[in-house]
Amino acid sequence: MVKVLQYGVGSIGSKITKALASKPWIEIVGAVDSDEAKIGKDLGVVAGLGKKIDVKICGSLNEALKYVKADVVLHTTSSWLSVVEPQILEIVENRLSVISTCEELAYPWRKNPETAKRIDETARKNGVVVLGTGVNPGFVLDTMILTLTSVCISIDRIEAWRIVDASKRRLPLQRKIGSGMSLEEFKSAVQKGRMGHIGLRESFDMIADSLGWKFDHVEENLEPVIASTPIETEFFKIKPGQVTGVSQNVRGTIGNVEKLKLNLQMYLNAENPRDTVKIEGVPSLEFEVKNGIPGDDATVAIVINMIPRVLNAEPGLRTMKDLKLPFAWLRAF
Amino acid sequence: MVKVLQYGVGSIGSKITKALASKPWIEIVGAVDSDEAKIGKDLGVVAGLGKKIDVKICGSLNEALKYVKADVVLHTTSSWLSVVEPQILEIVENRLSVISTCEELAYPWRKNPETAKRIDETARKNGVVVLGTGVNPGFVLDTMILTLTSVCISIDRIEAWRIVDASKRRLPLQRKIGSGMSLEEFKSAVQKGRMGHIGLRESFDMIADSLGWKFDHVEENLEPVIASTPIETEFFKIKPGQVTGVSQNVRGTIGNVEKLKLNLQMYLNAENPRDTVKIEGVPSLEFEVKNGIPGDDATVAIVINMIPRVLNAEPGLRTMKDLKLPFAWLRAF
Repeated sequence: MVKVLQYGVGSIGSKITKALASKPWIEIVGAVDSDEAKIGKDLGVVAGLGKKIDVKICGSLNEALKYVKADVVLHTTSSWLSVVEPQILEIVENRLSVISTCEELAYPWRKNPETAKRIDETARKNGVVVLGTGVNPGFVLDTMILTLTSVCISIDRIEAWRIVDASKRRLPLQRKIGSGMSLEEFKSAVQKGRMGHIGLRESFDMIADSLGWKFDHVEENLEPVIASTPIETEFFKIKPGQVTGVSQNVRGTIGNVEKLKLNLQMYLNAENPRDTVKIEGVPSLEFEVKNGIPGDDATVAIVINMIPRVLNAEPGLRTMKDLKLPFAWLRAF
Repeated sequence: MVKVLQYGVGSIGSKITKALASKPWIEIVGAVDSDEAKIGKDLGVVAGLGKKIDVKICGSLNEALKYVKADVVLHTTSSWLSVVEPQILEIVENRLSVISTCEELAYPWRKNPETAKRIDETARKNGVVVLGTGVNPGFVLDTMILTLTSVCISIDRIEAWRIVDASKRRLPLQRKIGSGMSLEEFKSAVQKGRMGHIGLRESFDMIADSLGWKFDHVEENLEPVIASTPIETEFFKIKPGQVTGVSQNVRGTIGNVEKLKLNLQMYLNAENPRDTVKIEGVPSLEFEVKNGIPGDDATVAIVINMIPRVLNAEPGLRTMKDLKLPFAWLRAF
């Protein structure tokens, strides 16, 4: 049995808790959340399991670790490395390995090299492993693409799309893609940063470093998708002219040739949602996941499925490309 | 620079040699083949590089190793473990890691457990790594499927198809799928064994063991595909009623429920060639490679791309699921 501590009991943390409860090889031993409304309550009740599971949500890791021993922490608090760094360091200094859904942690070596180095060194010193993963970054636009390249002798260019119909996703996701904003509100939110999907650059950097591509120029952009007809979701009523979501690109060129382009579209009622990878090379390949990989379930799955890989990896900050082949862990550990 | 010795200079061995010659991080240092017509000749000439590369083809590994030191052997001689076992053991006893396209070596732990154990023990004793890989087994119907399962919380059933248009493939492949045979010749060839694609059971076993599925019943079958109209390839003229190829299945059931089905169709002028994976679970996924992954190029690629993974792995007989995430090795080593 692997003893798991759930750090962060928001939407994804709750979904992870439900999935953990279905795994015979896992014992949930503790939970941490900063929300006063959740502290002191039973994790099973807060996560929506419909029953108590004898795990009290604590307000801090220190408090949780007074009562229990854990093998690994599943961490789901924020997309931002600046927010999660002290949390990750505290986990690691308690000699616990951690798998986090923090998007900026999926491949921090390029965009946040100093933070990456601090986390890596602390993890090594304490003999534990840190991994950032999730559906994306973590799988669709990095791990999945890299795996597919393993049957290529040479590669001229890679282009990949993830087109997500956000109308069935969680409120925080619908909100962060700008649903219901006016064009002006959207532009102002973009300027303040923290708009749209986090992690596209991390996926791009993981592919670039793996393939050894050093770009002369990298361009990132983020555009709104505008409603042409009224749209209604569980959470929003959108009028024509309002924002329904985002289209984001990262492009890298060598000389004047575009070598790598990742495009992520997340908007309400997206047509023909899918994940597509096109590799031009020897051989050229075209892959598609019909309807795309469902985000929340996939994130929950990969976080849990990576536990055995993380527990057997060499200490340090690892990324998906550094660990053994990922697959669904349905058997005993 | 990684020093590579090419063992087997047939069709795939020659294609690998050409690809190796294009890789700046690789030095081809030696070659072995049993064909008297090739022994003593320059590898570059025999492999179709159109020039000498100062590597003489030797009749035995012993002879080749008199003159050169190698870091890894790429081995492409036979699909059958009984044929390659002494070759693999000789390589390993010379303290060389080896990547082989031998289909039965891709996952020998179930069908050939004693041979697997002998190879594993000898590799460990000599501190080297043995890997069997290729497009299939090695990627399409095992590694690729497993990677996709990493975003699944639970899986009820997996079904996958690889449909290959054999009319563009090599003569040995067109021959081994029975092209041009009468139905009687095909049936008699099947009874003698050694007919059709080798390795489907190995792919099946790799998935089953990875997911921890213990089947109550496993069924394998091999059916001919019959021409309804005349077909002409570079090598064959097929009349209606003659065999154009094979359709092979492996199915595993638990209780009366079919959990895993792999289907491989290889026949001349196959319609809509493709690789398709359907996973029923949470979430359900459907994945397709348009036109399918081209066999020969992909085999050449994955054999070379796995070199860095093999050179950094723990000694022993390894399979694709035991090594770090595979991807195209386009950078320096």
